[in-house]
Amino acid sequence: MRRKIRMGMVGGGPGAFIGAVHRMAARLDGQIELVCGAFSANPKRARAAGRELLLPAERVYASFEEMFASEAARPEEDRMDFVSIVTPNHLHAPVAVAALKNGFHVLCDKPMTVNVKEARDLARRVNKSGLLFGLTHNYTGYPMVKEARHRVHAGELGTIRKIMVEYPQGWLATRLEGTGQKQADWRTDPARAGASCCMGDIGTHAENLAEYVTGLRIESLCADLSTFVKKRVLDDDGSVLLRFQGGARGVLTASQISVGEENGLRLRVYGEKGGLDWRQEEPNTLALLYPDQPRRLLRAGAGDANLCEAARAACRLPPGHPEGFIEAFANLYTAFAAALDARLSGATETVPDVPTVEDGLRGMLFIETVVKSAAGNAKWVKMPAS
Amino acid sequence: MRRKIRMGMVGGGPGAFIGAVHRMAARLDGQIELVCGAFSANPKRARAAGRELLLPAERVYASFEEMFASEAARPEEDRMDFVSIVTPNHLHAPVAVAALKNGFHVLCDKPMTVNVKEARDLARRVNKSGLLFGLTHNYTGYPMVKEARHRVHAGELGTIRKIMVEYPQGWLATRLEGTGQKQADWRTDPARAGASCCMGDIGTHAENLAEYVTGLRIESLCADLSTFVKKRVLDDDGSVLLRFQGGARGVLTASQISVGEENGLRLRVYGEKGGLDWRQEEPNTLALLYPDQPRRLLRAGAGDANLCEAARAACRLPPGHPEGFIEAFANLYTAFAAALDARLSGATETVPDVPTVEDGLRGMLFIETVVKSAAGNAKWVKMPAS
Amino acid sequence: MRRKIRMGMVGGGPGAFIGAVHRMAARLDGQIELVCGAFSANPKRARAAGRELLLPAERVYASFEEMFASEAARPEEDRMDFVSIVTPNHLHAPVAVAALKNGFHVLCDKPMTVNVKEARDLARRVNKSGLLFGLTHNYTGYPMVKEARHRVHAGELGTIRKIMVEYPQGWLATRLEGTGQKQADWRTDPARAGASCCMGDIGTHAENLAEYVTGLRIESLCADLSTFVKKRVLDDDGSVLLRFQGGARGVLTASQISVGEENGLRLRVYGEKGGLDWRQEEPNTLALLYPDQPRRLLRAGAGDANLCEAARAACRLPPGHPEGFIEAFANLYTAFAAALDARLSGATETVPDVPTVEDGLRGMLFIETVVKSAAGNAKWVKMPAS
Amino acid sequence: MRRKIRMGMVGGGPGAFIGAVHRMAARLDGQIELVCGAFSANPKRARAAGRELLLPAERVYASFEEMFASEAARPEEDRMDFVSIVTPNHLHAPVAVAALKNGFHVLCDKPMTVNVKEARDLARRVNKSGLLFGLTHNYTGYPMVKEARHRVHAGELGTIRKIMVEYPQGWLATRLEGTGQKQADWRTDPARAGASCCMGDIGTHAENLAEYVTGLRIESLCADLSTFVKKRVLDDDGSVLLRFQGGARGVLTASQISVGEENGLRLRVYGEKGGLDWRQEEPNTLALLYPDQPRRLLRAGAGDANLCEAARAACRLPPGHPEGFIEAFANLYTAFAAALDARLSGATETVPDVPTVEDGLRGMLFIETVVKSAAGNAKWVKMPAS
Repeated sequence: MRRKIRMGMVGGGPGAFIGAVHRMAARLDGQIELVCGAFSANPKRARAAGRELLLPAERVYASFEEMFASEAARPEEDRMDFVSIVTPNHLHAPVAVAALKNGFHVLCDKPMTVNVKEARDLARRVNKSGLLFGLTHNYTGYPMVKEARHRVHAGELGTIRKIMVEYPQGWLATRLEGTGQKQADWRTDPARAGASCCMGDIGTHAENLAEYVTGLRIESLCADLSTFVKKRVLDDDGSVLLRFQGGARGVLTASQISVGEENGLRLRVYGEKGGLDWRQEEPNTLALLYPDQPRRLLRAGAGDANLCEAARAACRLPPGHPEGFIEAFANLYTAFAAALDARLSGATETVPDVPTVEDGLRGMLFIETVVKSAAGNAKWVKMPAS
Repeated sequence: MRRKIRMGMVGGGPGAFIGAVHRMAARLDGQIELVCGAFSANPKRARAAGRELLLPAERVYASFEEMFASEAARPEEDRMDFVSIVTPNHLHAPVAVAALKNGFHVLCDKPMTVNVKEARDLARRVNKSGLLFGLTHNYTGYPMVKEARHRVHAGELGTIRKIMVEYPQGWLATRLEGTGQKQADWRTDPARAGASCCMGDIGTHAENLAEYVTGLRIESLCADLSTFVKKRVLDDDGSVLLRFQGGARGVLTASQISVGEENGLRLRVYGEKGGLDWRQEEPNTLALLYPDQPRRLLRAGAGDANLCEAARAACRLPPGHPEGFIEAFANLYTAFAAALDARLSGATETVPDVPTVEDGLRGMLFIETVVKSAAGNAKWVKMPAS
Repeated sequence: MRRKIRMGMVGGGPGAFIGAVHRMAARLDGQIELVCGAFSANPKRARAAGRELLLPAERVYASFEEMFASEAARPEEDRMDFVSIVTPNHLHAPVAVAALKNGFHVLCDKPMTVNVKEARDLARRVNKSGLLFGLTHNYTGYPMVKEARHRVHAGELGTIRKIMVEYPQGWLATRLEGTGQKQADWRTDPARAGASCCMGDIGTHAENLAEYVTGLRIESLCADLSTFVKKRVLDDDGSVLLRFQGGARGVLTASQISVGEENGLRLRVYGEKGGLDWRQEEPNTLALLYPDQPRRLLRAGAGDANLCEAARAACRLPPGHPEGFIEAFANLYTAFAAALDARLSGATETVPDVPTVEDGLRGMLFIETVVKSAAGNAKWVKMPAS
Repeated sequence: MRRKIRMGMVGGGPGAFIGAVHRMAARLDGQIELVCGAFSANPKRARAAGRELLLPAERVYASFEEMFASEAARPEEDRMDFVSIVTPNHLHAPVAVAALKNGFHVLCDKPMTVNVKEARDLARRVNKSGLLFGLTHNYTGYPMVKEARHRVHAGELGTIRKIMVEYPQGWLATRLEGTGQKQADWRTDPARAGASCCMGDIGTHAENLAEYVTGLRIESLCADLSTFVKKRVLDDDGSVLLRFQGGARGVLTASQISVGEENGLRLRVYGEKGGLDWRQEEPNTLALLYPDQPRRLLRAGAGDANLCEAARAACRLPPGHPEGFIEAFANLYTAFAAALDARLSGATETVPDVPTVEDGLRGMLFIETVVKSAAGNAKWVKMPAS
């Protein structure tokens, strides 16, 4: 790398949660530099954010439109390389489209858009643009998720039969929206979140993780969505029966009303020859299951010869030195930056191990299909291939 | 207690698994004595079992019919009090009916019968007979299951919203039937097991546990059953979306092809005010979850003031001295024996904390409804109330 | 087995803890029958115990002397075969000596005596008598402890380097003695417990477990004992540096004032080639550690081909069906009964896998050496070989 | 903060482990900027490091002496503020002394020096200089360690009675030194590591953690050190009995030959009223133990009202989003930077929550006392107060 990759950010002002995470992830490996931002629609808050981030005032913008225009006008040796989009869902597509139009690469939070139509349109634009687009399904950044994927793809588990993925949270068990909690506000608001709260916010992580690790696509599903908290419009809990291509069956359950649960994403996969079990809250262990042998606890760790190359490369520390959420997130940023650096150095084909615009479209199709299934009486609803 | 309660057994000869468990459970607390048995249809095996159990030859019978007739003819001070039925499923009802006709109380393994018709008939007969009937859904015998039930019933969790129950096993991941493994043979044989293998054998435990702890009845369900192992006729895996009376939602998954899993029954219940989490493989801990407080790990232990009376009474040892599967099973036997003793002492109403014939009927309705749902295209299938 | 082995019991009346455990352990496998007892020095309590245990009044004795005399006078086909001694420590030796004199085999609770002198004397008498003597260091009865021992003895861990054994409890963190708690009363009383409370009661379990699993003898030690609760005379906490024959080093810590701890016996052994980790509170798992491979979780289970024969034989149930404290305890009783049965059948040499009188003497030497070390200024105190 | 704090680094070139960790820790919160370095005594390796870190060539120095001289000569608005020392132990003191002489604040890796004499000298110089000095006993940076400290200091556990701290590792179980592994090379070399390998490298972390959390000082100790690997000169394993001021007892064990163990630092503290248990490998949970209540699992998480202010401030993410080793390390860097910023803004007294030069001296006294105790025959050796 000859120089740091230059990042702009849209969203992530005071009170936001995920913006700060993106910034730490971008910083961790020292290959990305935040150079500008449109942190808030509120100019005062935007400026406050800029000051706190030690940015020069002239690169703290009042709007993303202004940011893209101004940055595009800067000399190349100074100009932002890519934008990180950390706004509520409804702004993802408009910001991403504007970035692409201005020639900027895009790293965007999930779910990708607020509906399938927007997602298809964005996918078309990305593919036409030749620009890099990444989606921060951050859980794919964990080393042991990469190891799990490797083991499945290497055939160690044999033909996959059953996939269990769950994502219990409890933070929306009461009517948090309207109390000043910004995270709850927009996630429960159809205008900003889209057609689903729970399935959109965390169900898509579960769906993405299952497909990322197994490489299998959901073919049809049968969903039950609930809204337990009064006056809430969108779902806050749901369970889905899954049928995958090739015959595997599955069950996905996501919840934001499971009181006392924190961020319990867990994936279990069982094949003819073996199984695996991974839990986000203890992410450095991957349990490998065998029919006739003791369970093995594979552990994350740089340089561990038991791990595949991708997993090893995703670790910064030896076994026993826990890496967590931010490090996994940073793996996406660093892979994206490396791909960008290669592009800038003239490489024409660089495919970072970062979820793509197609994965984003899958997520939107999943949400749409789940919502449709939950509302209908048909048992199985096909999930469109793309 | 003036004397030990006298037990006869049907089934449980060499090669059986659960018969030996029932005998240990019966012995543990020293209140029950095995006095006779019809352990096998094979006379040689039956006699071998009798010898090993140190029974007098004249009380080792060639058939259950002979046993009931001979025992009924013995003087009262010597006669068997109740029969423990540990045969494959298809014999449960015939043996139980014969026992009732001869005036013997019955403790029967689960699932209760091979179909709903048999179950209804048996329920009718039990209720008319005035005799005690218990069903060994043994997981209800665990102290922390009783504690969980207590906490829900006392309102500590508030209105129940979500119930997650799972039961992964891996032992039928290959075609074990036909290899001489008797357990696999009959469980995968519709003639002996009934309409379901996985849902009948372990799915009903999961269903029973969920209803026992929450006191809520399943109203409708949506099931997907699979048969992954070739040439197998019955299901070896399945997942079910559940809707309970009062609005709670749930998901139940049971599997016998989840390689590497042992006997992973687990129940999670989330209410408006709290949640709980219990796992059979570490049965002495019950996790209590709260919206705004740390998780608490309640532990089994005789005399522990943090436990309800039923849980405390179900413990034989102080905290930290693990009790397990046999002890939980023994709690059913001991409760049944105590109720019988009370009867024999003239008490007219004795309701032991042991699953009933109605619970057995619920189990059969569950199996029937799951099988029907899995075969059909309707999304929700009502589960009959009884 | 042609008949059940007949057991008499000394101690274990109302209010006792361990007597009931011994009785359950004796009952579990159906090979031992309690035929008589001297349960309490208080005649009323003794009779109450006898009634509750459904024993005939004439075999509920007022004293152990009376019991041995009366039983010895009974015809052989009816007479007690062995005595189970479950009194406070100070009575172990007198009762055992009396039993031996009357020709009865002995199964005795630990620690074996109240001092080394008594222990040596008892060992001499046992060896001269030709009778069976077993000591209920019950933790050796766990399947995974037997597996651990097997792995070490088979050389899987290579030369042993480090042994860590700990036994934290919290139940004596306050002055429980004098409040009517009989267990606390005698354990804290030098006249009944011997020279140590904590090290005698649980430290010896830790010592025995370490030596049983590794086969290595402690050669010298350096101890620190404490008494944290006011007015208590004996130790309630202690830690010991250990040096084993062959060069292994170790550390043993035992405590009865570690508030919130239940019965946390844990053993870790590290050799040149591998390590192992076992915890009594989750006894069905044995972790195997390797220098360059993932940790493996070996699980207890009847018929599991990954286990050695001794471990398999110590299991009654398949993996995932937890067995606990009582089952481990029962393994000692059942092994003792089988050896007795072989003796009664004419076998001349039968060595059950039950801790011996020599192990009991080791325990007393350990206590004496620890107490001596704690009181002195020498760094290392030799532990006599026997 | 008006600007980023400027850091220089000594050590941490290619092949080093801890240097990269320090850099990530420094970067994470965006308040520190690496501006220069003397990464290696080998000029080629030094330059390579500088290039990889995207530093201007003129600020990549050939030696720390050159770095301090050159940086001191730069204009203030550009000059390095503090040095991060990440060399092998024997260079800590010389580099730190040179930094202080040139007016630079110091953040230094542990153990602080190679002997007590050096440590005392350094302490004197730091105190005289008025400059900030921090020592990266990084485990104190974990939120739940801060919470543990808070709970003890708030009196929740009552008078402390027993402290158990352990630190098993397995990475030096074979003769890794001399195989090209730089970490092993210098740690086992007295000239670079000091008088101890295992106790110096990780035993001091354990000692520091115990004293940090409890606020109690070790008064005397009794140590056994071992060297299991042939041809190794320094200890690779050791256990220490501890006596603390106020009467608490403890045991510390550290090992680098415990095969299969990764980085198992664990602290348990038991007081009259409560206890706690923390494990570095699952650092986001702190177990709180009570005499008569269920164990509570306190969890790290920004904004969690169950945590003390220091713990909350040490979290970047909500509960369930695991933070790990780097984040804990970063907490020291960020606290140090904040204190430096305050200094630069004119504050005269700023005491960051970062281990001090006195803590560093304590560590050296601990090593020296342990080594002395291990070599001698006296049972208890006093640890000098400072």
